[in-house]
Amino acid sequence: MQKDMVRVAVDAMGGDNAPEQIVKGVVEAVNESADIQVSLFGLEDAVKVELQKYTYPSERITVVNAAESISMDEPPVMAIRRKKDSSIVKGLQTVREGTADAFVSAGSSGAILAGGQLLVGRIKGIERPPLAPLIPTESGVSLLVDCGANVDARPSHLVQFAKMGAIYMESVVGIKNPRVAIVNIGTEEEKGNMLVKETFPLLKACPNINFIGSIEAREIPHGGADVIVCEAFVGNVILKLYEGLAGTLLAKVKEGLMSTLRSKIGAVLIKPALKSTMKGFDASQYGGAPLLGLKGLVVKVHGNSKSTEVKNALNQCRTFKQQNINEKIKQYIDVPTAT
Amino acid sequence: MQKDMVRVAVDAMGGDNAPEQIVKGVVEAVNESADIQVSLFGLEDAVKVELQKYTYPSERITVVNAAESISMDEPPVMAIRRKKDSSIVKGLQTVREGTADAFVSAGSSGAILAGGQLLVGRIKGIERPPLAPLIPTESGVSLLVDCGANVDARPSHLVQFAKMGAIYMESVVGIKNPRVAIVNIGTEEEKGNMLVKETFPLLKACPNINFIGSIEAREIPHGGADVIVCEAFVGNVILKLYEGLAGTLLAKVKEGLMSTLRSKIGAVLIKPALKSTMKGFDASQYGGAPLLGLKGLVVKVHGNSKSTEVKNALNQCRTFKQQNINEKIKQYIDVPTAT
Repeated sequence: MQKDMVRVAVDAMGGDNAPEQIVKGVVEAVNESADIQVSLFGLEDAVKVELQKYTYPSERITVVNAAESISMDEPPVMAIRRKKDSSIVKGLQTVREGTADAFVSAGSSGAILAGGQLLVGRIKGIERPPLAPLIPTESGVSLLVDCGANVDARPSHLVQFAKMGAIYMESVVGIKNPRVAIVNIGTEEEKGNMLVKETFPLLKACPNINFIGSIEAREIPHGGADVIVCEAFVGNVILKLYEGLAGTLLAKVKEGLMSTLRSKIGAVLIKPALKSTMKGFDASQYGGAPLLGLKGLVVKVHGNSKSTEVKNALNQCRTFKQQNINEKIKQYIDVPTAT
Repeated sequence: MQKDMVRVAVDAMGGDNAPEQIVKGVVEAVNESADIQVSLFGLEDAVKVELQKYTYPSERITVVNAAESISMDEPPVMAIRRKKDSSIVKGLQTVREGTADAFVSAGSSGAILAGGQLLVGRIKGIERPPLAPLIPTESGVSLLVDCGANVDARPSHLVQFAKMGAIYMESVVGIKNPRVAIVNIGTEEEKGNMLVKETFPLLKACPNINFIGSIEAREIPHGGADVIVCEAFVGNVILKLYEGLAGTLLAKVKEGLMSTLRSKIGAVLIKPALKSTMKGFDASQYGGAPLLGLKGLVVKVHGNSKSTEVKNALNQCRTFKQQNINEKIKQYIDVPTAT
């Protein structure tokens, strides 16, 4: 039975709603699924106070004390190296040692990315582990790979992103034969910057993916591809503009609704329907953003995550393990012949 | 009097609504402003049929026959070289010759960008003319520079974009001491890809601009800066994602409004207020996207432009000339000492 358990190390101290919502989400996940086992890393007393609020199978949630915390604005690599007693470092180390299958944190993205590489380590042959969040589209979700911190990527990195992204979308999200596209400024093959022009033929020649060519940013929200490949700078711009623009537009809609008496009455009538439609435009039901290509799974959830997102991330870890994603990645990635 | 006239060459055949809406917009502009004079380039008969619908001072609108047209999917440079009798080539040539101050087109972006450089030519010292559209924000508009077709920019290009963008925002849009920022994946100075890291200190040292540092894409819709500097690939992604995501979100809102009887009744009540608020989230009142740093003004208006956008672009040409933008650019740009 221990064999089928998914063992997840969770950073109890990361994000805006820690430890309350983190602990709540962990309890919800464990109560819903008999095969999830969690180690909560953080200030033992604070975490235990939260746990005492709930009923749960105590043999499946343990608390590990971690006295230090890494803040959002600390230089990540230095923080990982120095703060040996932080929840991120201690949690990631259990993945490295193999006593946990996955690590989930709502804390500093930079520290999670740096720690994932430094402490967990890459699968042999993987040049760079990308951060691959799901973004909502008109028709569902798309995987945006890479949104990490490693900028100035090479074409070979992007090809690996495409392969790992396709595996993830097919096995974890359940999209059969996912359409892979590269972000470009036009749809013709000769368009693009040097990186895209060099990567395009490599993706075209790639046997294991359903490459459909270039995608313009305009088509991303329409669901024009399932796996959207780009280097991290562009991915970061897309991800953050998505968040910012959605916020601004919905604020504008709200401003319109509140601008006249007539519209205020209308607003009351439309609210439930609008809320339920907009809820569909949300990718958090699928969990957080995985860092792909590491020896274990590392998941970054949004800093403002509530218990539901934490619970979804734990379910994501379970699917990731059950679907043997890392075995599939190892199988598909060509190990470079270089030294 | 001829001296104060703004002489604009207009591509009567470009875009989805040509020649009807183009001609209509030209007539509206000329009727509103006594100092705008237009040459309409296109199929003479078709243009004249449209003109006959209106009353206007005939001495200020002339028609120049141009038998060829350049389509959206033609390789731009080749089209500009070969189609000597196209509305774009003939119109741009009048700017080159100095018989027009500006050229306005809703046609192929690629052809307009290529033609601007090849036929009109750059101001001495300008390394690259950027395409600089205005994008709507919560608080007004921001200039996004560069969204053109010249990717893989160098730091010195971005510095020139910043200077020209600041001049444009101050003189044409009327923003005093506009805040200039560079698109980045974090706000700390050490963040970014190689291009941004190299450009940052150059912008910081630049005496003539109000450089406020990095801007994350999330802050762009919030109006975090007035002039948003980036290389063309990133600019293109931002511009197109803006369009695509706004379309998708508004479609989602509509879907929500139409989903129940109750919400349908509410929709009728909110419609006028919502429409007027969303109208504020629109940059087209400022005209089209200028190609900055050329010896004359070249303006690309959206392919689906209606008469109002065309009229606004003609007013933009007038402000551009009245404010002596090109003289200001010449003054501020340091002429490189290279050969």
